[in-house]
Amino acid sequence: MAVEIEDVIAAQARISPYIHKTPVMQSERLNELVGCNLFFKCENLQKAGAFKSRGAVNAVFSLSDKQAKNGVATHSSGNHGAALARAAKLRGISSTIVVPSDAKQVKKAAILSYGAQIIECEPTLAARIDTLERVVRDTGAHFVHPYDDDLIISGQGTAALELFEQVESLDSLVVPVGGGGLLAGSATVAYPVIKVYAAEPEMADDAYRSLKTGELVTRHIPRTLCDGLQTTVGIRNFAIMQDKVSDVLLVSEEEIINAMRLLWTRLKQVIEPSSAVTLAAVLRNQETFSGQRVGLILTGGNVDPDDLPFSPGQQSEPRNSRNQLSW
Amino acid sequence: MAVEIEDVIAAQARISPYIHKTPVMQSERLNELVGCNLFFKCENLQKAGAFKSRGAVNAVFSLSDKQAKNGVATHSSGNHGAALARAAKLRGISSTIVVPSDAKQVKKAAILSYGAQIIECEPTLAARIDTLERVVRDTGAHFVHPYDDDLIISGQGTAALELFEQVESLDSLVVPVGGGGLLAGSATVAYPVIKVYAAEPEMADDAYRSLKTGELVTRHIPRTLCDGLQTTVGIRNFAIMQDKVSDVLLVSEEEIINAMRLLWTRLKQVIEPSSAVTLAAVLRNQETFSGQRVGLILTGGNVDPDDLPFSPGQQSEPRNSRNQLSW
Repeated sequence: MAVEIEDVIAAQARISPYIHKTPVMQSERLNELVGCNLFFKCENLQKAGAFKSRGAVNAVFSLSDKQAKNGVATHSSGNHGAALARAAKLRGISSTIVVPSDAKQVKKAAILSYGAQIIECEPTLAARIDTLERVVRDTGAHFVHPYDDDLIISGQGTAALELFEQVESLDSLVVPVGGGGLLAGSATVAYPVIKVYAAEPEMADDAYRSLKTGELVTRHIPRTLCDGLQTTVGIRNFAIMQDKVSDVLLVSEEEIINAMRLLWTRLKQVIEPSSAVTLAAVLRNQETFSGQRVGLILTGGNVDPDDLPFSPGQQSEPRNSRNQLSW
Repeated sequence: MAVEIEDVIAAQARISPYIHKTPVMQSERLNELVGCNLFFKCENLQKAGAFKSRGAVNAVFSLSDKQAKNGVATHSSGNHGAALARAAKLRGISSTIVVPSDAKQVKKAAILSYGAQIIECEPTLAARIDTLERVVRDTGAHFVHPYDDDLIISGQGTAALELFEQVESLDSLVVPVGGGGLLAGSATVAYPVIKVYAAEPEMADDAYRSLKTGELVTRHIPRTLCDGLQTTVGIRNFAIMQDKVSDVLLVSEEEIINAMRLLWTRLKQVIEPSSAVTLAAVLRNQETFSGQRVGLILTGGNVDPDDLPFSPGQQSEPRNSRNQLSW
């Protein structure tokens, strides 16, 4: 029933023609700072700018022709919508993405660029579900859930599988948790050889509370700048998490911004806040990881340069040189 | 006399233990946008965050023991200072960097992190030269010029040499021009097989005017956000430019910011404004490059996240989700 490592291996073979094998980056300076050996899996360089392309391609290319013939649909304000639209385009089927009216322009533009139809709705959970159900009823489209789905979980697990092929003898793997698709897929591959830790914003701590109490938190209003992590963990994902994840490590919003700044200035990678929770968790728990070889998945790079969580107030006046020797 | 391709090949052998072989990146979306095939040489991922490490290592490791024994010195408010400090540390000699008092904190921190001594001076050309001369007189340090120097030129030329090994059959190469070290080194390697274009901000157009009039512009007050390009072209560099560079392509500040935004959102690379002039030049001259295979050198990634030329005024209110379904 549950996802097995064989499913992830099968997913890897299925999706490899359509996704990037992303590079692994290191920074000596960051290693010195944290006292362990960090290996960053750069899914910000993945197709459509996020690991979500893995699961979406796996789900879409696993459909039978009959299942696929009326296209696919989902509701999304972010990376899953763009990834599903891209996967549908690759398979030559239609896609419909229900998008809340407050979704960021840059995300909507990405979805449209892959030829999807966007249907806007009120930015409430009820409106999104209602609208999606109507779309599915009217079009016969196949609903692809963003994380609580075995094909999505096994697709996302290919990021960790690929990382383990690229880097030998990792001790631990740190993965952001939102809905838990990437976490569940990663743990499926890593367990029990490599310890898996989830990293989660304190302001969206449903995975933490679910793991500690043993009871899945489903009603929860997250308030974090990590727009990719504002979801509660899915049922399938929670079961895998209880079985195979060592711990959930919480981080503050300030720690996330600090880690994001470090990743930008040291790795020179544009990453979204959700990616930075991994490094933030290692920084906060240095004794746990001391001397280890630690993998971290940088999940995506879809941020708007005009909407960054840094301190633009510090922007200086016109950058003139008072003289011409500013090399 | 002048730098020859053999000098660049020798430099490559000399510096290779100390620098990164940087990756080449592509973006299908950017290719579609400009109508040609772009290959980005990512020197933002170079040691110390810029191509300057190439020239600095070449210069420092070419010194005789006698020349090196009192260390090296330069004046710099940016990447050359950090690169020279790093090269000196690698060779085990001291370095002194004269830094104008208005230099950015992040640049000073980088210089200090490599163990250099910083001497601050007034932010004027006269004060910088005076202070440097005093340092050289007092310490016997060897002055390493940031660009008007054969060893620096041949060191910087290794970026293009490496790119040509990585990517076959380029038609053109686009390189930013400030002092002209990278441009001269690149042209030495590329000419006459691959056409070399310099890209320069309109607000710092001394290279353009020098090439058009045949007379080197030396007095010039640039006003561009490209802090790496606020220099006038060196004498050696100008001679090579006249001989081997096809044209200087000017770009506006607005075009630079637009190109920088594209590189951040499409390549997901943190680059400094000076790097973006290359893509800006291709965007402005699409007919020139139509259908070609074009190399572009992304020169560096040392920007302060708190000091970016985007539009922070657009930053939105707290990124709360009104509901928890924001995947």
